[in-house]
Amino acid sequence: MKYTLGTDFGTLSGRTALFKVGSPDEICCSVYEYPHAVITADSDFAKKLFGELPQDFALQHPQDYLDVLSVTIPDVINKSGVDPKDIIGIGIDFTACTMLPVYKDGTPLCFTDKFRCNPYSYVKLWKHHAAQDKANRLNETAHARGEKWINAYGGKISSEWMFPKIWETLDKAPDVYDAADSFVEAADWVISRLCGKETRNSCTAGYKAMWNKRDGFPSKEFFAALDKRLENVIEEKLSCPVTAIGSKAGEITKDASMLTGLCEGTAVAVANVDAHVTVPALGMKEKGNMLMIMGTSTCHMLVSDEDRYVPGICGSVEDGILPGMIGYEAGQSCVGDSFAWFTDNLLNAEYAAEAKEKGLSAQQLLAEKAAMIPAGKSGLLALDWWNGNRSILVDVDLSGMILGLTLATKPEEIYKAIVESTAYGTRMIIENYENHGVPVTGLYAAGGIAAKSPETMQIYADVTGLEIRISGSSQAPALGSAIFGAVAAGKERGGYDSVFEAADEMGSISDVKYVPNKEAKAVYDELFEEYKRLHDYFGRGENDVMKRLKKLKDR
Amino acid sequence: MKYTLGTDFGTLSGRTALFKVGSPDEICCSVYEYPHAVITADSDFAKKLFGELPQDFALQHPQDYLDVLSVTIPDVINKSGVDPKDIIGIGIDFTACTMLPVYKDGTPLCFTDKFRCNPYSYVKLWKHHAAQDKANRLNETAHARGEKWINAYGGKISSEWMFPKIWETLDKAPDVYDAADSFVEAADWVISRLCGKETRNSCTAGYKAMWNKRDGFPSKEFFAALDKRLENVIEEKLSCPVTAIGSKAGEITKDASMLTGLCEGTAVAVANVDAHVTVPALGMKEKGNMLMIMGTSTCHMLVSDEDRYVPGICGSVEDGILPGMIGYEAGQSCVGDSFAWFTDNLLNAEYAAEAKEKGLSAQQLLAEKAAMIPAGKSGLLALDWWNGNRSILVDVDLSGMILGLTLATKPEEIYKAIVESTAYGTRMIIENYENHGVPVTGLYAAGGIAAKSPETMQIYADVTGLEIRISGSSQAPALGSAIFGAVAAGKERGGYDSVFEAADEMGSISDVKYVPNKEAKAVYDELFEEYKRLHDYFGRGENDVMKRLKKLKDR
Repeated sequence: MKYTLGTDFGTLSGRTALFKVGSPDEICCSVYEYPHAVITADSDFAKKLFGELPQDFALQHPQDYLDVLSVTIPDVINKSGVDPKDIIGIGIDFTACTMLPVYKDGTPLCFTDKFRCNPYSYVKLWKHHAAQDKANRLNETAHARGEKWINAYGGKISSEWMFPKIWETLDKAPDVYDAADSFVEAADWVISRLCGKETRNSCTAGYKAMWNKRDGFPSKEFFAALDKRLENVIEEKLSCPVTAIGSKAGEITKDASMLTGLCEGTAVAVANVDAHVTVPALGMKEKGNMLMIMGTSTCHMLVSDEDRYVPGICGSVEDGILPGMIGYEAGQSCVGDSFAWFTDNLLNAEYAAEAKEKGLSAQQLLAEKAAMIPAGKSGLLALDWWNGNRSILVDVDLSGMILGLTLATKPEEIYKAIVESTAYGTRMIIENYENHGVPVTGLYAAGGIAAKSPETMQIYADVTGLEIRISGSSQAPALGSAIFGAVAAGKERGGYDSVFEAADEMGSISDVKYVPNKEAKAVYDELFEEYKRLHDYFGRGENDVMKRLKKLKDR
Repeated sequence: MKYTLGTDFGTLSGRTALFKVGSPDEICCSVYEYPHAVITADSDFAKKLFGELPQDFALQHPQDYLDVLSVTIPDVINKSGVDPKDIIGIGIDFTACTMLPVYKDGTPLCFTDKFRCNPYSYVKLWKHHAAQDKANRLNETAHARGEKWINAYGGKISSEWMFPKIWETLDKAPDVYDAADSFVEAADWVISRLCGKETRNSCTAGYKAMWNKRDGFPSKEFFAALDKRLENVIEEKLSCPVTAIGSKAGEITKDASMLTGLCEGTAVAVANVDAHVTVPALGMKEKGNMLMIMGTSTCHMLVSDEDRYVPGICGSVEDGILPGMIGYEAGQSCVGDSFAWFTDNLLNAEYAAEAKEKGLSAQQLLAEKAAMIPAGKSGLLALDWWNGNRSILVDVDLSGMILGLTLATKPEEIYKAIVESTAYGTRMIIENYENHGVPVTGLYAAGGIAAKSPETMQIYADVTGLEIRISGSSQAPALGSAIFGAVAAGKERGGYDSVFEAADEMGSISDVKYVPNKEAKAVYDELFEEYKRLHDYFGRGENDVMKRLKKLKDR
């Protein structure tokens, strides 16, 4: 019997899960919360080491990632009683773009006395938002120069991505920039700690660092147009070649063996991103399938043969999700977050007591009540932009709206309207793909909402008109990583020679299936037309009231 | 020492207050709740007598009004110890249009065995909403025929008014129509019970029965165009001449003396409407002054020398509020109701507990928290149409909207946005008057919100840019009625010869004054521009999404 490990690095913790090769059933799992969590202006750590930190900073400490390895891997080995010799591979997935400056040997600058007190030497977490001006200038320059690659990102790159973050460091901490031999994704950095060798995975390179398989990174001329000092940024700071996901990065070194308890020589997969790695965990390998990873926000992963320009998506990358296919990523920046916002702020005492009495969470109670209301009967319509709009408007300055309120409007009707609005947002993304030549034929879902809220999933089926299949594993990202670990080991060692084979055997779909209700779908078709009209009115410049209100608020 | 009485007939109860002539200070007051309350489809009374009643019916029992007289008047006489001989006059005010069919001697048809089980023989309360189709056809016909009088009603009359209600009875219960010698306002009917003589007051005739001082009622041709059977409706069913408010209707009869304990011969004023009668209770007599009576909804009463066509108002009537002036009425159908909707449905348990601990009502707590948020800082904007829009759009199918929601939005911000939206609604009404040649120079307020919510009143001052003065009396309608009672008595009997004299001496303004804050006003000017744009977008046909949602809901 052979085993494979997946380690999933989230925003606040890392978790490792152990799987039998050939089965999706997790044998055991171990979670470790990052001691430094997210380092922000309010953190004691920041106050002590940096004095002040700007409000939009979100840093992490790379030691926490090493701790995840040294705690959770021995823990699952120990708890499972599995002989490390039978563990043939390990894969990891990470948030992205979560990046850090390192020396040639991979040592983070923040580990040195010289830079310990410089915030720019730490990991910039995906949600570090201090480089918006850089992203704006980068987008302007790309469009002014007619750069073709910007189309792969729906015409706009985000301040969360690699180059705005690097450029910010160059500008604000040139000593850090100069001292760094490389800027790496934390995902790739962890892999380098495991196999002693730097790699750069095609997923983060493609989605977060403007790289593509055909043309590589943007040209020197482009980077020089941004900032003369960036002209040679690729050779100077990102020289490690890109490796396709699904490849083997290397093998567990002696040091890594001591750190993790894994045997030297165990196969290590090229790193991956949490959302992307989830696709094979559901056994998805047909083109046209879209996976929604639904939590506080939703990521929409789509694999296709079609290589098209689709405006407003996060990115399209060859080999980005599955080898040999175009992987498309889109997203909604606020899904579960807005449901929770409602219960956190507006759940009345009577309902709170009722939930308690029935042993339900507030959201379960509201979802149950909401499920009794037929489509269209609330008379409400909302725009789901409580946290701006990621796809397809790519505009953080938009805000939420709700309309149709009357003196008879009940809380569960508002809750349902918010849920429906996020389903309309997903349908906008699907229709946008289809309008640009990329068909979406199957819909899958993973993440907390998919697992826990059947009412929400039914609404998504009714709104999109697509049957929805649900992840069979509650640890889908870790399972996906473990699948890549087994592929890195290869058939010879008891694993697989391709991700598709592995996904076939280890990918897992629940028996639960959400089938659109025809009557509800017909009503939602009408409501969606109303949503679209308001979406365009408020989102596409006809009335920029949301932006003006935000400016007034920030004044 | 002389005294005067005012009796205020509300939707659920009637109250009588006693005043010393020359002083606004109430000596004592007595309230009586109508035993039949509002008779609707759900009332036991309706089920027992009528079997079924349509959902939009709202009836009352005229016996309840007589009970108010026979309970509350003796009660104040008794409690105050005042000698009835020293009570020189009585005035009353009523909801309107609240009407009933009566025989020649004033006996309501519903008092007879023949009609007791016929719902059309009862009082149709102002909020009886079963005659919308009649109102629609009446408006269409008036415009098709180019009837000039429709301009006095902002171009549109309401289903709540006299002729749609009469026409509905003609259609649905022709036996009631045929048997009735007269259709009368409940206000005028009560007066007839006090002084044994039918009168028809200029206020309800003008605002609710399409009458005006110059041309009287619409022509026979117009009524015939509605329905041949209505051709002679005025001669046949509304033959009693109209008397200007501020006149004496008659004197207490022997029967009425027995009913009320008042002396025979006590002066009885012509009836009036609750909102309208409040104007002199604040001592208002200058043209350009607007009074907001702010409760669940708001009525805006404006007196002016200008006789203009102002679209979207409820009505403009010569002698309608004060003798010799044009009285304009406009309204917002949802003010305090939407504040209460928020606390009834969306007050979270933490705030509920905090309110309890501090001994505040939920609304007080939210108002206090909201007062800490500077104008514009919530980033929210709402449209105040939770119950449709009365002025200036005259459209019951509109609904509430709130925009600018984010994950950081707090309950008090939403509460404040709802309050602000009602203030913008008032500013729309004011600007609409000014745009049509009727200046508004002073702002006054009465009613529960004016008395109890200083935070709300400050927002109204900041939004309108006008200083706001508040009623000195908490029983302003009753005081207004008592003023008219003293005028009916005349100077000779110890009262007054004109409403203006009486208002001067008995009208009362509180020392509290709300002065606009310049900075807040500047921010609200910007927000009001946004409100106006959305008001027109959703309210004037650019996007009828609210109406379509309502239709879908009702389907």
